[in-house]
Amino acid sequence: MSASENQQFRLASRPKGMPGDELWEQRNEPTPTPGDNEVLVATRYISLDPAMRGWMNEGKSYIPPVGIGEVMRAIAVSEVLESKHANFKPGDHVGGSTGVQTHAVIKGEELHKVDPAIAPLPAYLSVLGMPGMTAYFGLLEVGALAEGDTVLVSAASGAVGAIVCQIAKTKGCKVVGLAGGAEKCSYVVDELGADACINYKNENVFAGIQKHCPKGINVYFDNVGGEILDDALANLTQGARVVICGAVSQYNDMGNIYAPKNYMSLLINRARMEGFVVFDYQNRYGEAATAMAGWMGEGKLKHKEDIVEGFDKFPATLRKLFTGDNFGKLVLKV
Amino acid sequence: MSASENQQFRLASRPKGMPGDELWEQRNEPTPTPGDNEVLVATRYISLDPAMRGWMNEGKSYIPPVGIGEVMRAIAVSEVLESKHANFKPGDHVGGSTGVQTHAVIKGEELHKVDPAIAPLPAYLSVLGMPGMTAYFGLLEVGALAEGDTVLVSAASGAVGAIVCQIAKTKGCKVVGLAGGAEKCSYVVDELGADACINYKNENVFAGIQKHCPKGINVYFDNVGGEILDDALANLTQGARVVICGAVSQYNDMGNIYAPKNYMSLLINRARMEGFVVFDYQNRYGEAATAMAGWMGEGKLKHKEDIVEGFDKFPATLRKLFTGDNFGKLVLKV
Repeated sequence: MSASENQQFRLASRPKGMPGDELWEQRNEPTPTPGDNEVLVATRYISLDPAMRGWMNEGKSYIPPVGIGEVMRAIAVSEVLESKHANFKPGDHVGGSTGVQTHAVIKGEELHKVDPAIAPLPAYLSVLGMPGMTAYFGLLEVGALAEGDTVLVSAASGAVGAIVCQIAKTKGCKVVGLAGGAEKCSYVVDELGADACINYKNENVFAGIQKHCPKGINVYFDNVGGEILDDALANLTQGARVVICGAVSQYNDMGNIYAPKNYMSLLINRARMEGFVVFDYQNRYGEAATAMAGWMGEGKLKHKEDIVEGFDKFPATLRKLFTGDNFGKLVLKV
Repeated sequence: MSASENQQFRLASRPKGMPGDELWEQRNEPTPTPGDNEVLVATRYISLDPAMRGWMNEGKSYIPPVGIGEVMRAIAVSEVLESKHANFKPGDHVGGSTGVQTHAVIKGEELHKVDPAIAPLPAYLSVLGMPGMTAYFGLLEVGALAEGDTVLVSAASGAVGAIVCQIAKTKGCKVVGLAGGAEKCSYVVDELGADACINYKNENVFAGIQKHCPKGINVYFDNVGGEILDDALANLTQGARVVICGAVSQYNDMGNIYAPKNYMSLLINRARMEGFVVFDYQNRYGEAATAMAGWMGEGKLKHKEDIVEGFDKFPATLRKLFTGDNFGKLVLKV
């Protein structure tokens, strides 16, 4: 690959179910040239997020879907090769929504600088990136976390869940995670500091919640949807908050989504279930990043990236998000 | 019936589905005598509420279930016959949870006076009673109503829904009701002042919502649950509030409840779904009653009671709540 060749994954058709290899058109184009106020970047790390599955579907959502034939949307960390924008110069590292491609030309306003001297580049896609912001605002704002709360977190070893667990611990809460497999559960307890972790693959989730949250759940941070959401709803305390961050167990079959039959627990418990989109907090990212960097400095906030090397591996790597095969924030190294 | 005879409906067994006549043991007992600080009352009007169906089920809820063999729980307006409590004297009218019986002995602290000179006695079971308080706090507190909101109300001609419609209109909102049948729909628009009413019995609810709420729903006040909840979820605006007040369409088959498959609309729209129990607002009932009485004085708040006469008719009258046959607040006149 040379700087004059831009490799891309374009969405060729809309997925049904698990996104297969056949959805993608791999195309090599000449690397574009930046115009006024634009910047040419070389992609270094591409963030793979469950939300990408939603962006591939047709229809109304919180942002427009990726069009057929378009480069797949993705957030990435890149290096500036050429700049016609006053804020950037070659060699700078930047984050932005530059897509699944090895190079991109993008307006300078749509990029922000990241500093590899402060944290390794992949961290800007995890704890200091969208997953970190999602955990911070979802837990503290939407979940209205209070000291002493019992917090249940699904996908607790995942990019968002791991940060939720740790922030909740810094706030003096009891934290119970849910993860798939003994290795992930050990990580959640031993590394992230959760009080317990339920292995949903071989434990009864309802019984596990009753055991570890005998007084009920104050905050359920839901990344997965499905039956686990119902188990959580059945164990709420009065005034509980259910934060709908995602439903990764359902993304490949949204037409046949698992509907939470215990929603009337919201009435009995005077509880609420609330969704959010992290982009709404964009003007407060600085506040979150400052807090997160502080906790990282104090050793209270660990992060783990699952880095897969090789741009060509994008289609297979994306699927790892939905099979539970990734462990930590999934990142593609270009 | 004499003052020495207390007729009662006691719960003989737990219902499955629609509550049949066989659930009840009708018993005549000697009228009890009040002890210190107690009051003997003669029941005048008994409130029939959808919540009663929930009280008949076993298991955890916001209040304990009615025990097998116990007098059925009900809120009623009564006349004091004999008082050993300083606050009450014979001839006073009082409200309280005195049950489905013609007489009751109850502690004075559990009663509150009502004044038939201010409003007819049944109004103390509707607009000035639990349904009125439910509408007031559900809409203004849980629903966080704002001027200019578009409000969708199910069971809009019912005891709670009718008041929700009218409060929302006094607050400068657009109001769309849902009711069963042309007569109820006319009432919702012509008498309650709603901007439109969808007849769910012969109209497509989803299409009706799209027609009458083209910009989406800011507040959905849900009394019914079921598919209509899904239709509403699919039409939320950003930041919408779904108030879970009840699910009367589901109360006779809670083991097989209709689960809202469109709950992920809460994420897309950064919306929330929240339940509440009116009893939590007990110390603020005075505030609500004052506001409601004010609106009644200005002619902005109408109320309609569906009064069935005859204590013996309790079992059949209760079923009217679940067949949609009542029209207005359902009250049994003793």
